[in-house]
Amino acid sequence: MENDEGYMRLALELAAKAEGWTSPNPMVGAVIVKDGQIIGQGFHERAGLPHGERVALAACKEDPAGATLYVNLEPCCHYGRTPPCTEAILESRIARVVIGTEDPNPLVAGKGASILQKAGIQVTSGILQKECRQLNRVFFYYAVKKQPFVAMKYAMTMDGKIAAHTGLSRWITGPVAREHVHQLRHRYASILVGIGTVLADNPRLDCRLPNTKNPKRIICDSQLRLPLDSQIAVTAGDIETYVATASDDKEKSEALRRAGCTLWYLPGSDGRVDLAALMKRLGENEIDSVLLEGGGTLNYQALNSGLVDYIYAYIAPKILGGRNALTPVEGLGRDCPTDSILLRKKKVTLLGEDLLIEQEVSKAAGHV
Amino acid sequence: MENDEGYMRLALELAAKAEGWTSPNPMVGAVIVKDGQIIGQGFHERAGLPHGERVALAACKEDPAGATLYVNLEPCCHYGRTPPCTEAILESRIARVVIGTEDPNPLVAGKGASILQKAGIQVTSGILQKECRQLNRVFFYYAVKKQPFVAMKYAMTMDGKIAAHTGLSRWITGPVAREHVHQLRHRYASILVGIGTVLADNPRLDCRLPNTKNPKRIICDSQLRLPLDSQIAVTAGDIETYVATASDDKEKSEALRRAGCTLWYLPGSDGRVDLAALMKRLGENEIDSVLLEGGGTLNYQALNSGLVDYIYAYIAPKILGGRNALTPVEGLGRDCPTDSILLRKKKVTLLGEDLLIEQEVSKAAGHV
Repeated sequence: MENDEGYMRLALELAAKAEGWTSPNPMVGAVIVKDGQIIGQGFHERAGLPHGERVALAACKEDPAGATLYVNLEPCCHYGRTPPCTEAILESRIARVVIGTEDPNPLVAGKGASILQKAGIQVTSGILQKECRQLNRVFFYYAVKKQPFVAMKYAMTMDGKIAAHTGLSRWITGPVAREHVHQLRHRYASILVGIGTVLADNPRLDCRLPNTKNPKRIICDSQLRLPLDSQIAVTAGDIETYVATASDDKEKSEALRRAGCTLWYLPGSDGRVDLAALMKRLGENEIDSVLLEGGGTLNYQALNSGLVDYIYAYIAPKILGGRNALTPVEGLGRDCPTDSILLRKKKVTLLGEDLLIEQEVSKAAGHV
Repeated sequence: MENDEGYMRLALELAAKAEGWTSPNPMVGAVIVKDGQIIGQGFHERAGLPHGERVALAACKEDPAGATLYVNLEPCCHYGRTPPCTEAILESRIARVVIGTEDPNPLVAGKGASILQKAGIQVTSGILQKECRQLNRVFFYYAVKKQPFVAMKYAMTMDGKIAAHTGLSRWITGPVAREHVHQLRHRYASILVGIGTVLADNPRLDCRLPNTKNPKRIICDSQLRLPLDSQIAVTAGDIETYVATASDDKEKSEALRRAGCTLWYLPGSDGRVDLAALMKRLGENEIDSVLLEGGGTLNYQALNSGLVDYIYAYIAPKILGGRNALTPVEGLGRDCPTDSILLRKKKVTLLGEDLLIEQEVSKAAGHV
C-alpha cells in the first residue's frame, strides 16, 4: 500500500531520535494507524526501557483494536530485559503489523512475524528494508558477528598529515568538523585509542555536546604507560574506562584499577595487545561499536588485521608539509599500491570549511 | 539584452575548443549575429593563427555590415603576431560589439573598446564577465604577473600516501583519473618535476591522449643528475626540455645540451635551484603555466616560497599505510597546524573510483 512507506519513514525517524542511547539494543520506532489517523507513536529510548511497540501502544489516544502497527524492526518474541512485544501486540488486538526488516539473528528471524501471523494478524514485511537495515547497521553487524563494528576516524590536511613534524595537532579541522566528531562519540558505544595518543595529547575522549552520552573508553596500552594523573585515569571513576595491555606488571595494574579502570590482559605474539582478542572481549561485554581514534601505528595494526569496517576521514583545506609529520596510517605499510587496503562506497559531505569522506573497508581485499 | 548572454556563452564554448593550444595567447571565440541569425562564428586556434574575431568575420555567410559581434575578450588594437582586430571590425562595418571582459593588461584595457566606440560602434562590456575571466585564468594571471600560473598536482591514497614505503607508486589512482592528468598536461604549457621523480620513475612526462600537445618539460636538477639515457633526455629532441640547475659542471651541461635540453643556471643560496628565479625565467620565455608534478621535497619548496597558485589532489579509495611511505608535501614542513598553508574554494569531482579535489592556494596566509 502506498501509505505504508510514509508511515514506515515516520517510524524510522522516531527510532533515530534515540541514536547513541539504545546500545546494545537496536533503535526502534513504532506508529499505530487507525482509519487513516495516527492514534499512537513512540520509540525505544534506551536499553532497559520499554520497546518502541509498547511505547506506541501506551501512547494510543483510542483503542488500538483493529489498527495497523508500523515498526522498523521485527517485534521481539523472547523474554530479555523486557517481556516480548508480540504479546503486547496480541493483547492490543492490532489487526495488521507492517515490519521494516527481520530480526538480524538468523535463529530468531521470522519468529516474531510468524507468531503474529499464526494469531490471525496480517503481517507485511520488508517495507523500506534497506533504510531499516542501514539505521541499525551496528545492531545487525553485532548480532551476526558478536564483535563490534569498528569505524576509524582521522582528521588530516590536504597533504595527508594528522600532526606537524613537531607533533602539534591542534587544530587540523574547524569547529563544524570537530563537533561532528563529538556526534560520532555519542553515536558509537566506545572509543579506542593507542597509548601514544594519550601520552601526546592527554585527551579526555568524552563527548562535550548537550544531551549526549560519553562513549566507553578503551586504551590500547601494551606496557601500561597510562599516567595516573592523565585526564583518562583521573576521570575513570566517571566514564567507563578499559585498559587493554600486554604487561603483567601487578603494581601498575592495581594502581589503574584503583583509579577506576578495568584491565584486560590480552598479550599478542608480538608483545603488543592482540587486537583480535580485544574485539572478541568487547563483543563479550556487549560493546557493539568502536570509534577508532588511534594514531598511525594502532590504525595500521587494526586495518592490517582486517578489523576495521568503516572510515571517517575529515580533510582540512590546508597544507602542513613535513617528511617527519604524522600521517593517519603508519606502521610498516603495504609494499605496493596494488596491495593496498581497498575502500568503497564513498560518501562526501561538506562540513564548514572541511570535507568528510566516509568509506567502507572492502574486506575481500583488505584482509591479510 | 536577454540574448546577449546566450551568444556570449556560445562564444565561450567556441573559445574553449582551443584549450591547450593558444598559449601564450588567450582563448577567444566570436559569434556574429544579424537579424536574429548567426551568420558567422569562429575561434582562435593557436598562437600565430588569426584571432577569433577575424575567423568569425571570414566565416560569414552574408555581409556582416550592421551585425552584432560577440567576443569573450576585448578585441586587440595593437600589432602583434597578427594585425589588430579592431581594424577588421571597422572594415566589416559591424554595428555593435558585445565584449565579455576587458583586456587584463591595465595599460591596454579599454583601448580596444574605446577605438570601436569612437568609430561609432555601439559597445556593450562585461557580459558573463566572471566566466570569461575564468576561462582565460592563466592568460589574465600571466598578463599581470609576468610569471606562470603554477598548479600542483598529486595523486594520493586516503591516508595521504603518493608511494609505498618501497617507493612503488604505480598506480595510486585508476584509469579515469590518470586520463584526467593527461588532459591537464595538454592544458598546461609546461610540466615541472624534481630530479628525484625522474630518477625514481624515469617518466616521459608527455601527453598520451589523441589530439593533444605535449607540455614543455622543466626538470629541477640542482646537481645535474639527469641521466643521458633517461626517457626525458632521450626524447629532448622532440619535446622542449629545460633543465634548471645549480651546478656549473660544464661537461654534464654540454652533454645535456647535445641531447637537446636547454640549460638554465639558476643557483639559490641553499645550493638548490632558485625557484623564484626559475618562475621569472619561465615568464620571460612566454611559458605562462606550469603543472607541478614534483615529489614532496620540490612541492614543499614551491609551496613554502609562495609560488603555487592551485592544487589538484586526486584521492584514491585505498589505504597504503607506512611510516616511511611518501607523502605529497614533505621537506621540513610547518611547525604547527595554525601555521599551515591555507587553501580555499574547493571543487570536488568524482573521477571513476577516485575523487579530485581542486583548491586555490590562499596567498595571504601561505606566503612566508
